[in-house]
Amino acid sequence: MEKHIISQENEQGLITDILEKVGLGRSQGQIVADVLTKADLRGIGSHGIARLSWYVKKIKLGAVNLNPSLELKRLGPTMALIDGDNGLGHLAALKATEEAIALAKEYGLACVGLRNMNHFGIASYYPMKMADQGLIGLAITNTLPLMAPFGGAERKLGSNPIAVAIPGGKKTDIVIDMSTSNVAYGKLEVALRNGQSIPDTWAITAEGQRTTDPKEGLAGSLLPLGGPKGYGLALLVDIMAGLLTGASYLDRMPGLGQDEKGQELGSLYLALDPSRFMAREDFNRLIEDYIADIKASKKAQGVDQIFLPGERSSAKEEKSKKEGIVISPGLYKEVKELADQVGLDLEKYFSTNFK
Amino acid sequence: MEKHIISQENEQGLITDILEKVGLGRSQGQIVADVLTKADLRGIGSHGIARLSWYVKKIKLGAVNLNPSLELKRLGPTMALIDGDNGLGHLAALKATEEAIALAKEYGLACVGLRNMNHFGIASYYPMKMADQGLIGLAITNTLPLMAPFGGAERKLGSNPIAVAIPGGKKTDIVIDMSTSNVAYGKLEVALRNGQSIPDTWAITAEGQRTTDPKEGLAGSLLPLGGPKGYGLALLVDIMAGLLTGASYLDRMPGLGQDEKGQELGSLYLALDPSRFMAREDFNRLIEDYIADIKASKKAQGVDQIFLPGERSSAKEEKSKKEGIVISPGLYKEVKELADQVGLDLEKYFSTNFK
Repeated sequence: MEKHIISQENEQGLITDILEKVGLGRSQGQIVADVLTKADLRGIGSHGIARLSWYVKKIKLGAVNLNPSLELKRLGPTMALIDGDNGLGHLAALKATEEAIALAKEYGLACVGLRNMNHFGIASYYPMKMADQGLIGLAITNTLPLMAPFGGAERKLGSNPIAVAIPGGKKTDIVIDMSTSNVAYGKLEVALRNGQSIPDTWAITAEGQRTTDPKEGLAGSLLPLGGPKGYGLALLVDIMAGLLTGASYLDRMPGLGQDEKGQELGSLYLALDPSRFMAREDFNRLIEDYIADIKASKKAQGVDQIFLPGERSSAKEEKSKKEGIVISPGLYKEVKELADQVGLDLEKYFSTNFK
Repeated sequence: MEKHIISQENEQGLITDILEKVGLGRSQGQIVADVLTKADLRGIGSHGIARLSWYVKKIKLGAVNLNPSLELKRLGPTMALIDGDNGLGHLAALKATEEAIALAKEYGLACVGLRNMNHFGIASYYPMKMADQGLIGLAITNTLPLMAPFGGAERKLGSNPIAVAIPGGKKTDIVIDMSTSNVAYGKLEVALRNGQSIPDTWAITAEGQRTTDPKEGLAGSLLPLGGPKGYGLALLVDIMAGLLTGASYLDRMPGLGQDEKGQELGSLYLALDPSRFMAREDFNRLIEDYIADIKASKKAQGVDQIFLPGERSSAKEEKSKKEGIVISPGLYKEVKELADQVGLDLEKYFSTNFK
C-alpha cells in the first residue's frame, strides 16, 4: 500500500487552505493549523488533522463564529478572563496563553480564564508555549460529557484533560497531557472495529454495570481514572475551566454533535515563573539533574528506558519534522474528501521526497 | 470488647499534652492537635492520632526543630516562599495557608511555597481552611519515596498527594485529597496482616514485576495511579512542592526513617478567589446547583447515592463531633504506651459519656 507522508509545512498549509475555503481568515487558520499539526508531529493523531472534518462541518453549519471579538477583562493584577465569542478555541486559547505569559513574566504568577470557546486542539499546546518562555504552564479544559461520576450511570463529565509543561533546561521539557478518564473514547471504537473485548475498567453500560463489550461501553459511559480520584480531577477541571469562567459544564453543553450550536466550552491557564523562586541557572541545573536522576533509576525487567512525561512525543516531533508525518490510508481518504469538497488538489501537499 | 471513644476536644487536648511533655510549646501543639484530630474526625485514621508516636520519636531523636523561626520571603505581589526551619510541618503549613488566604483576598490569586518542613498531616486540612474563607484552595506536598517511576523498579517518588477544596455555598464544600499512587502503602500492610493477596495493579517487586503478594509488594514499590498519568502527577507535585521551593525531592530526602534527621519536605499552596470571576452569590448559586445536578444524576445499579468528593468525610466529621471518635483497640494500646511514657493518665481523656 502506498504510504502517505506530508511535511510539517505542507500539513500546516493544507489545513490553512481548507479552512480558508470555508471562510476562516488565514491568520486564524494558521493558528489552528499549527495546533493540529503539532498534535500529528507529536504522534497524537486523534487530535491532529483528523479533527479537521468536524471543524469544517461545524463551520459550514454556522455553529462557529469565524470573526470572534475576544474581549479581555482584567480580574486582578495577575488574573484575566477572556470571552471567546464562540470562535474556534485555538485563537482564543493562544490569546489567553500570551496573556498568562505576559502577566507571569511581569508578576511571577498568572491565572487566565477563557469562556465561550469551541474545541482548542491538544491541551498541551498552550503550556508548551509557556515553557518555551521559561515558565511552568498549565491548561485545563472541559470537554463533551462521556464519563459517569463515580457511582453514576450517565455521562455527566468530559474526559477533561490536564496539561502541564515544565521547562527542562538543556533537557527536553516535561510535558504532561492526560485525560481524567481511564482511557479515551477512541480506544473503545478501535476495539469494536477489531472485534476485541475491553478490560472492565474502561467503561460501563447505560445501566452503570462494568462491561467488557466495547459496543455496550460506547453506548454507556467511560470510567474515571482510578475511580474516585479521576472523578475528583474531572470535577475540578469542569468547575475551574467551565463553571468558574462562566462557560458551560456537566452535560449542559450545547453543540456536542454536528448541529448548528457552539460548544460553550471553558478553559483555564496558569503560568508561574520559576526564576522567582531561584536563579534561572539554578533551576535549570536542578531540573536537568532531576531528569537525569529519573532516567538513571533502576528499570523494571523488560524495560529499555524510563521516559519522562512527554519525552517520547518530543522525540517523535523531532523525527516527524525531518521525515514527515505519516497519514493513514483511512485518514488520507477522509482528508481527500474534504479537499475535494472545497476544490483543493490534495496530491500537491504530499511530497514525493518522503516516499 | 470495650469501645474506646474520645471527644474532639479531648483528643485535641491529649495530643497537645503529649507533645508538650516532649517539649513542644502549647500553641504549636494545638495546631498539630487540630490537624490530626481533623483527620480522625473525617475518618482518615491513617493520618490522625496514629501518626503521633512517629512525631514523638522524631522529636525525642532531636530530628525536629521545636522552635522554628519561619522566614517569609515575598517573591512577587501574589507569591511568597516560607522556610519551615525544620519544624513540624503543621505550623509552617498553616502560616503558608494564612499568607495564601491574605494574598488571594487582596489580589484574587496567590501561590505560596514552603520548604524545609516535616510531615504536615492531611493535605486537605489547608485547602479546607481556604474554602472556609470562600476561596478555592490547593495544597500539594512531596512525601517519602514509596513509588517507582512508570517503567521503573525502585522507589523514587512519594505518593505525593493533591488536595483541593472548593466552597460549596450552602452545600458541603467539595474536598479532594488524593495520593498519586494507586493505593496507599498501608493497604498492603493490611493485606499482609490478613493473609490476603493483592490486585497486581498495586505494587511491584524489587525487580519491578507486578505482584499479588503483599510481602513482595511491601519490599518493592507502589505503582502510580493509572500508570503514566499518576507518574506524571507525582513528578509534578515533587517538582513544584519540592524542587521549586528549594526542599528535597525524589529519594534524596533525609529523615525517612526513625533517625535524627529532619525530612526536608516541601509543599505548595494556591488560593483563588472565585468572586473575582463573578459575584459571590452567583458562584454560590452555580456551585449549589452543580452539586445538586451531580447528586440527582442516574445511579449505577446497587448504588444508593452519588457522593461529591469529600462529602462522606464531611458527614463523618459531623457525626464524630457529636458522637466522638472511635479509637481501635490496637491504636488505643499504642497511644496508651505513649501516654505512659510521658506520664499522662490516658483514661481521663476518654469520656464515659460516649460508652
